[in-house]
Amino acid sequence: MAKQKIAALLVTHLPDARYVCGFTGSNAALALTAKAALLVTDGRYTAQAAQEVKGAEVRIAKGPALAEACKWLAAARVKHAYYDGEQTTVSALSAMQEAVKGSAKNAKQFFQPLPSPLVSAQRMVKDAAEIERMAAAAALGVRLFEHIVGFIGEFMRPGIPENAVAAELEYRARLWGAEAMSFPTIVASGERSAFPHGTASEAKLPRRGFVTLDFGVILNGYCSDMTRTVHLGRATAREREAYDAVLAAQEKAVAAVAAGVKAGDVDEAARSVLREAKLADYFTHSTGHGVGLEIHESPRIAMAQQTLLTKGMVITIEPGIYIPGAFGLRIEDTVVVDRRGCRVLTPATKAWIEL
Amino acid sequence: MAKQKIAALLVTHLPDARYVCGFTGSNAALALTAKAALLVTDGRYTAQAAQEVKGAEVRIAKGPALAEACKWLAAARVKHAYYDGEQTTVSALSAMQEAVKGSAKNAKQFFQPLPSPLVSAQRMVKDAAEIERMAAAAALGVRLFEHIVGFIGEFMRPGIPENAVAAELEYRARLWGAEAMSFPTIVASGERSAFPHGTASEAKLPRRGFVTLDFGVILNGYCSDMTRTVHLGRATAREREAYDAVLAAQEKAVAAVAAGVKAGDVDEAARSVLREAKLADYFTHSTGHGVGLEIHESPRIAMAQQTLLTKGMVITIEPGIYIPGAFGLRIEDTVVVDRRGCRVLTPATKAWIEL
Repeated sequence: MAKQKIAALLVTHLPDARYVCGFTGSNAALALTAKAALLVTDGRYTAQAAQEVKGAEVRIAKGPALAEACKWLAAARVKHAYYDGEQTTVSALSAMQEAVKGSAKNAKQFFQPLPSPLVSAQRMVKDAAEIERMAAAAALGVRLFEHIVGFIGEFMRPGIPENAVAAELEYRARLWGAEAMSFPTIVASGERSAFPHGTASEAKLPRRGFVTLDFGVILNGYCSDMTRTVHLGRATAREREAYDAVLAAQEKAVAAVAAGVKAGDVDEAARSVLREAKLADYFTHSTGHGVGLEIHESPRIAMAQQTLLTKGMVITIEPGIYIPGAFGLRIEDTVVVDRRGCRVLTPATKAWIEL
Repeated sequence: MAKQKIAALLVTHLPDARYVCGFTGSNAALALTAKAALLVTDGRYTAQAAQEVKGAEVRIAKGPALAEACKWLAAARVKHAYYDGEQTTVSALSAMQEAVKGSAKNAKQFFQPLPSPLVSAQRMVKDAAEIERMAAAAALGVRLFEHIVGFIGEFMRPGIPENAVAAELEYRARLWGAEAMSFPTIVASGERSAFPHGTASEAKLPRRGFVTLDFGVILNGYCSDMTRTVHLGRATAREREAYDAVLAAQEKAVAAVAAGVKAGDVDEAARSVLREAKLADYFTHSTGHGVGLEIHESPRIAMAQQTLLTKGMVITIEPGIYIPGAFGLRIEDTVVVDRRGCRVLTPATKAWIEL
């Protein structure tokens, strides 16, 4: 805050508040000045806030937590308080202005949007303790993948729904310590593998075809994210070539990651391989994204992105191709950016698997 | 829109877009005028949008879907387009204004916040098809509760973690058709039952004490929500009295529900019973909330709320008490508001259960 000359800050996005003070409840407004900090929540969280919050005073509000935090800021003798425009709704801003009417000199101007990201920018770069948590979450993901491949190989017969695969995977995740899945589990089989976001459905596993498995767990608050695609039955030459091309693209992008590299150049590394294989038109999304307390965070690893990668960023590398009416596949790792390269947190095999 | 004299509307909140046109993807901007409708999404959803969207043209944008939808509205020869201030961030509003610069006459004024809720207001009142889906989701919830009570009774021994109960419950939910859980499953046992939002943890089931089970599934897009509290081992007289008081409060509130009743009066029905039992200070949240495509929707069933209940609203009734360091409990049903009363969608027993 001092570096950016931010005298006072209002944090309302829950993962940001958690990052700053440790509170994990579902209702919070965090107010910060150079000298003090206040976390406002409600009566459901009295005991939990006392237990969790570090570095901030806790107040249990009877009314809206947001208004209470705003009033505290207005009394803090600062000219302005800043908020994150990416995380604050137009209605919330009105409520904030309303709350400081009378107490701040110019209520309409008291709250200003941050000129550049602050908490989310800090969250992009993970410290050692965070990386350890993310490695643990990713390792659980790898263990789940290995389990589910064995499970499909042993118990799955064509005709069993994708949902049963997801059920088994999520059940094991829970038993092995996950707090929750970090997003709706994707099990996209046969023609459905051409849906990049084909969450597990009632659709039955086909006799032959790809099954894309894209899933993540939350462990100690941090998200894992990985994708592997396996094949049921004998593949066609076209399917096998497509797999090899996506794998080559994924490996080239992983190899391109290092501190100081532009995010857009990592995307281009993957895209160029698929272009050569004449598959780039089927690669309809970006190469990856940051991951941490949330499943999607900064930075974006996408075409022409100028953001420079920094040591400690944790990002996904996940090229894929989707041929409507035919098939699709995707391969994804989560990696930590290092000075000279990166460390892969999801070292499950990417070799061709035919079940 | 015609009734409220809204010539053009921009819908960006995903559950609202799904409600209006059926699209279930994770990126969408829906633009509506009196004559036409356009759903903009990205290349990941080409096949899915074609399959799902009804009543709107589909466009796959290369760049941001939001900007594309805004430009379409600016070209639609309307003076203003409206947006939902509750669902639009300050940054998104800037991007919207930027997108129509040059094409709309007064770019800064082109977008106006809705004077009163529109899509969310419509979503409050469910039609017959929606109620059928919600009844199916709630019925799955009841089946899960009955299963888990049997499971705890048969297999649970003190020392097994809350997470194992949640794992079993969520596994069954999946196998029996749930797309996902509608919120992180709460299994709060022993002293943790005094945490109203005690999501399942590594904490071990105690030899004796309450276990609060609060969970929901998503089925065909619609959320269920119910809570029951059971007791492990022999209860104290104080625990038993507290249970009876919460149950009486819950039943009185359910009995108070009918079309034309103020939401605040339903809250007061529950609160008055707990006041008489000298437990009202421990009832630290509101009585309930609307539920549908999202787990928390309008209306709020809270102190002094003036909203009038309407036939077809689906709401929860969930009083509870939380005595820090001792115990807590909650009982919750989901009900459909009827002309003369309500229909309970979650008819699992609320009788005292000692396992």
